Amino acid sequence: MFPVEYGRPTRRLIHLPRTIVDFWSLMNTALHAVPHLTTALTGPLLQLESHLLDHQAEIEAWFRDQWRQTPAPFYTSVDLRNAGFKLAPVDTNLFPAGFNNLNPAFEALCIQAIQSALERFYPTARRVLVIPENHTRNLFYLESLATLRELIARAGYETRIGSLLPDLDGPQVIELPSGRKVTLEPVRREGDKVGVDDFFPCVVVLNNDLSGGRPPILEDVDQAVVPPLGIGWSSRIKSGHFGHYRKVAEEFAAMAEIDPWLIDPLFRNCGEIDFMKREGENCLARNVDALLSAIRQKYEQYGIDKPPFVVIKSESGTYGMAVMTAHSVEEVQELNRKQRTHMSKTKEGQSVSKVIIQEGVYTFETWGEANAVAEPVVYMIDHFVVGGFYRVHTGRGPNENLNAPGMHFEPLAFADPCNMPDCTEFPDAGVNRFYAYGVIARLALLAAAREIRALDAG
Amino acid sequence: MFPVEYGRPTRRLIHLPRTIVDFWSLMNTALHAVPHLTTALTGPLLQLESHLLDHQAEIEAWFRDQWRQTPAPFYTSVDLRNAGFKLAPVDTNLFPAGFNNLNPAFEALCIQAIQSALERFYPTARRVLVIPENHTRNLFYLESLATLRELIARAGYETRIGSLLPDLDGPQVIELPSGRKVTLEPVRREGDKVGVDDFFPCVVVLNNDLSGGRPPILEDVDQAVVPPLGIGWSSRIKSGHFGHYRKVAEEFAAMAEIDPWLIDPLFRNCGEIDFMKREGENCLARNVDALLSAIRQKYEQYGIDKPPFVVIKSESGTYGMAVMTAHSVEEVQELNRKQRTHMSKTKEGQSVSKVIIQEGVYTFETWGEANAVAEPVVYMIDHFVVGGFYRVHTGRGPNENLNAPGMHFEPLAFADPCNMPDCTEFPDAGVNRFYAYGVIARLALLAAAREIRALDAG
Repeated sequence: MFPVEYGRPTRRLIHLPRTIVDFWSLMNTALHAVPHLTTALTGPLLQLESHLLDHQAEIEAWFRDQWRQTPAPFYTSVDLRNAGFKLAPVDTNLFPAGFNNLNPAFEALCIQAIQSALERFYPTARRVLVIPENHTRNLFYLESLATLRELIARAGYETRIGSLLPDLDGPQVIELPSGRKVTLEPVRREGDKVGVDDFFPCVVVLNNDLSGGRPPILEDVDQAVVPPLGIGWSSRIKSGHFGHYRKVAEEFAAMAEIDPWLIDPLFRNCGEIDFMKREGENCLARNVDALLSAIRQKYEQYGIDKPPFVVIKSESGTYGMAVMTAHSVEEVQELNRKQRTHMSKTKEGQSVSKVIIQEGVYTFETWGEANAVAEPVVYMIDHFVVGGFYRVHTGRGPNENLNAPGMHFEPLAFADPCNMPDCTEFPDAGVNRFYAYGVIARLALLAAAREIRALDAG
Repeated sequence: MFPVEYGRPTRRLIHLPRTIVDFWSLMNTALHAVPHLTTALTGPLLQLESHLLDHQAEIEAWFRDQWRQTPAPFYTSVDLRNAGFKLAPVDTNLFPAGFNNLNPAFEALCIQAIQSALERFYPTARRVLVIPENHTRNLFYLESLATLRELIARAGYETRIGSLLPDLDGPQVIELPSGRKVTLEPVRREGDKVGVDDFFPCVVVLNNDLSGGRPPILEDVDQAVVPPLGIGWSSRIKSGHFGHYRKVAEEFAAMAEIDPWLIDPLFRNCGEIDFMKREGENCLARNVDALLSAIRQKYEQYGIDKPPFVVIKSESGTYGMAVMTAHSVEEVQELNRKQRTHMSKTKEGQSVSKVIIQEGVYTFETWGEANAVAEPVVYMIDHFVVGGFYRVHTGRGPNENLNAPGMHFEPLAFADPCNMPDCTEFPDAGVNRFYAYGVIARLALLAAAREIRALDAG
């Protein structure tokens, strides 16, 4: 049989690396395996995974029904946490970055899904304008942007990047560590269309989460803007999403005959809060207390011998900013100045006035000899799961956020696709664990689809 | 940089092989590269490949327009021949086998394409009945059938196999060399539906080319039958397909500004012919002569210093039966009894009364140290190119048919998908050659789509 030393190499092997650095990261990826689930508490999850496998045809039929009623957004990434006893989404990003972290072996899958998506959104489109974030110095983001542009181009669309950077007055070419180049061109408006230069395509793909507000130049254009402006963080709130998710999880759980808690993080939210002025703290403390009690009750029900914790996040925050964890009410009552400052501002200096208090889900997946904590991020284009990667972090615990500013995680591309469950393998085999990730991530995708539909209705 | 010894391993590496035989075929695949184009006459093809790359966005937009007008069949495989100066389809199979020869790394791509296809053909379907060929002893075919069934099941459809075998009176389980099992159940009719046991799904996938005629049990069912009965070899003729293909190639060539001959094998056809009674031979000779002259003229135009040849095939033949090549009129005038017998019967004993005389296209791709001749076969599901393999044959010449009864070819899975052209690579780099294959194969797919539309109209 196959020597075990070979591990689970990925298709990366067949692409000639551009740099020596790439070579090593490639060898590392090639020689590694699926993260290890380091907990004895896998009973309910194994049950969940085998349950999902057994009901695969039913689950897929259910999803197909859902997408007919509520089409999926153009693209989405979902952060999952896998506690062994629970597998749940903790963040849903409708303007995903990180495309450069996906397994190059899945590029064909991404290309095919982009073709499906664009044929549906705008059948006669021939060209696409991508509007990115304004991070010109974040090379990780720019590598993702370059990959996204390439994927859309390889799907057969002429693709250019229109930047909202206020001080950009001509094309700017940025050289990337991968050896690629990315060209940013200033977005301009002509009548009811936005474009760059003389390029005014039918489809505008937003890769900017609009944390800084809705750019007036994009208002009321007669082009297809995907995802729509209204789903940016200037309008969207996390508890809105998780409210939809709760409903989706209940419906799914009823169909699949499981306890929805196994896939749904509990949450509560507060009214206005001002961390600097210490306003709204009582409401926060009350909610933290109530949520910890609720989690404790579920832990007792399942015999889970771990301290419950909650995660407090800005309602419209992103990039892992303004996030804290708490294991007790006291922790939120005794915030020091530094902690309060941390919680009061999010991306682009937006101040935090609302928070969501979410059940903390342990991450019991670890990686390598150092037992680094690993958190899966699943990518979807249209309703197709096209891959994902693990955020691997040596310096963090299983109850900590792995996506925080300035924090460097190691991306570990999924070795297998998420759409090929294999009932002849063990429920926890790689392809089957990835399938389970894909199912839960698609539930979050469905919640996002319902958010977008609610926008259209509202 | 990457050591050359690694070659271009495929994703096969990550799947544990089921048998030792598999292990070696896997290692072989892993260590091999893309076949070598052994001809100096690559000028026009390189030109064609770089032309296709340069016009990729335009070509893909053109295809999208075409699929909107004429939806693609459920699945199709196309045999191509690559002469270096010419790349053309020579056979289009609407009931493809050989799914087991595809690169396992592309399974996810197949699954995603099946999901797209079935969502389009029958949005609310939950189950699929596959109706296969009646070859119960052809293990290659049964391995393909097992793979096809698995792919549809993994796409999220309950899938069973309904056999038309007349003497099957209960489920028959066949063990395969791969270690898998395939279960054939007798098809039965109930009212307007066919099914097996109590399984009467909305969708019937035909994987039987109906060489033996249209089975009455499948007539006028109210289920979706894909591809439709009328496109089986009992009704279809090759010159019908290549008539559509000629038109497609002309339209494409006009758009892409190339000589259509570079992608289109010339052909002619005769009226009734009876090889045993030696009726219709004069017409055959006349057409062979005319076709050889036409090819000679094109060879002169492009300075190709090779003898032209033609391939004579049954109009409705398949499985490489009733096929011969001829380099001169004399060859068809001097057929001996054995040759005439060979040409007079095709699959399931159907007699040959009509032939197509097609321009022979040299295969100048070779493989390995033995310089075995290699012929690409491209697979499509819906309008997506999902992979392919090479038929590799050591005992045959560049002007011979590589798919003939009793002949054993080595399948060599494509190392890369066909949908990810890379304009930063050379036009003849693996991904780009595969892209060119995918473009030409899709032209044959479009011709098949138009054949099906003509059925519906007729």
